[in-house]
Amino acid sequence: MSHAQPPAGPLTIARLAELAGVSAATVSKVVNGRSEVAPETRAVVESLIREHGYRRRKRRVSPSALIELVFRALDGDYPIEIIKGVEQVAREHGLAVVLSELQHRDTGGTGWIEGVLGRRPSGVIAVFSGLSGEQRDQLAARDIPLVLLDPSGDPGHRLPSVGAGNWSGGLSATRHLLELGHRRIGVITGPRYALSGRARLDGYRAALDQAGVPADPELVGEGDFHVTGGLAEGHRLLRLPDRPTAIFAGNDAQAMGVYRAAYDLGLRIPHELSVIGFDDLPQMRWAIPPLTTVRQPLTEMAATATGMLLTLASGEPLTQSRVELGTDLVVRGSTAPPPERSA
Amino acid sequence: MSHAQPPAGPLTIARLAELAGVSAATVSKVVNGRSEVAPETRAVVESLIREHGYRRRKRRVSPSALIELVFRALDGDYPIEIIKGVEQVAREHGLAVVLSELQHRDTGGTGWIEGVLGRRPSGVIAVFSGLSGEQRDQLAARDIPLVLLDPSGDPGHRLPSVGAGNWSGGLSATRHLLELGHRRIGVITGPRYALSGRARLDGYRAALDQAGVPADPELVGEGDFHVTGGLAEGHRLLRLPDRPTAIFAGNDAQAMGVYRAAYDLGLRIPHELSVIGFDDLPQMRWAIPPLTTVRQPLTEMAATATGMLLTLASGEPLTQSRVELGTDLVVRGSTAPPPERSA
Repeated sequence: MSHAQPPAGPLTIARLAELAGVSAATVSKVVNGRSEVAPETRAVVESLIREHGYRRRKRRVSPSALIELVFRALDGDYPIEIIKGVEQVAREHGLAVVLSELQHRDTGGTGWIEGVLGRRPSGVIAVFSGLSGEQRDQLAARDIPLVLLDPSGDPGHRLPSVGAGNWSGGLSATRHLLELGHRRIGVITGPRYALSGRARLDGYRAALDQAGVPADPELVGEGDFHVTGGLAEGHRLLRLPDRPTAIFAGNDAQAMGVYRAAYDLGLRIPHELSVIGFDDLPQMRWAIPPLTTVRQPLTEMAATATGMLLTLASGEPLTQSRVELGTDLVVRGSTAPPPERSA
Repeated sequence: MSHAQPPAGPLTIARLAELAGVSAATVSKVVNGRSEVAPETRAVVESLIREHGYRRRKRRVSPSALIELVFRALDGDYPIEIIKGVEQVAREHGLAVVLSELQHRDTGGTGWIEGVLGRRPSGVIAVFSGLSGEQRDQLAARDIPLVLLDPSGDPGHRLPSVGAGNWSGGLSATRHLLELGHRRIGVITGPRYALSGRARLDGYRAALDQAGVPADPELVGEGDFHVTGGLAEGHRLLRLPDRPTAIFAGNDAQAMGVYRAAYDLGLRIPHELSVIGFDDLPQMRWAIPPLTTVRQPLTEMAATATGMLLTLASGEPLTQSRVELGTDLVVRGSTAPPPERSA
């Protein structure tokens, strides 16, 4: 295997085979994501493709009428909102949606990316995951566009992505509580890897600063975007000697955990505690009391990401590579002025 | 086009072409679900296939590594539980899952079945839908196995299917309420097309009969398996002059509607009203009070259906073509003895 004579521009299969010292058939297998190639051989070919790029001969193999939709985890209620948006736009364009789950990992289990490459999809939408650098390269080398939805980390690589106005949403939620008269406002973030949660927290801090209310680090809790995280942090916050009169729960699931914590401690919502969520999942209007929350348009975000993917798949450039859809404060029954102090 | 000489046994493409008076290429297009065939021609070829069967020549085209998972509707929280079960088993077998939605119809929109046929999946799992007779025939003619999950209607055609013990679940739910001392027990069914809801209602009636409690038709309401149906029927039941002291809500979403109806009318759960659901969706343990319900193992049912599909796809026979997984009563905080009568 020789790396002699760095060639100019992307390589053909024949040239890749020459440089890697393997047959053209083997390179073709790697390019098409087939599994019957020794790992070391695959690594050499992939590194050559990464280094120089790969030139498909006149796009002989057209992509299949499939879109890959991959979730970090199929947990809770938000995936179904996203699936609906993707499925709708895909259907309108005669495309089918292949769904997969990375099982809480960033990169998927054994064979996941090979499966994707083998299906030659028109594109990939990754939800709450940026995939690995190598996986991004593997997709790019095959002209398979990738769009990130609500990315959990730094998108980097200028990858196209769709998100919500998380910072603005955090700001509106907190402002709403301040306007009601709250000064001791707790907040629960998402897990550390989720930049969306961090942006909401920063919006909370900005609102407090603007109102001249000092931020108390004791009032900031780290959650996991699940009910259990909201419950644990809800209990901690509500047991503080000087407990908050309102909690911005970071998302709807955590808000349900705070509801339970308040119930456990005999605190009535909203009379003794105001709670505000983030997401506005469909069932939140049925919570008792109905949840005040920041609506994140998940289905519309998914539809937008799918539209961007289709644009890329047709070879057109995007007018914008990062799209953020706005959030809306939805005031329902879980927020009210703070109780009178009996000091 | 002549229908002369009824031939014996399934037909080859060549013979189909002869009988239909079209080219072999056209028949091949119909068989493979391609769209560029005139509707009348397609109808003639399909009717010949239906009549005589179609013999693939030595299975030249092997199925793709795809499973089709099709939902009547992507509504509420149960689809995600099913997706998880299918995705897990599919992944273990190196298969990907294509997801589609029939948009509340029985048969899908324009081009849906053609899309499925064109992808040559290893099999199809239909949730809450039996597909149309023609679609079933189209799949059967191509050796694409079909398994129904929680079928909403009469499976018929001896199609393989997986369900839950709906009748037994209805019986256990109602018995639990009877054992607590309730005698005025309301029930909310699903929509009319859902046999699962009918089976739960029959279980309710059987439990009442067994306990010698007369069934009052006024206490039976028709729902839609959504929160709104539970809310509407909950309001009606709780406004009856002799209102029920307990309601079997038919499913968890409707139970949440009953919770809200009780809240609207100032009735405390479980002190003044007992409520029991059906499904045990993950978030029901977080309802306030936590919901007593009948657990239907959706994820396990989906995994079972996928396993059956893989068996069929490998050409093996099923040991059982109808599988019902058991349900379990999960007693939490929403059921209690009825309040003392202040008559």
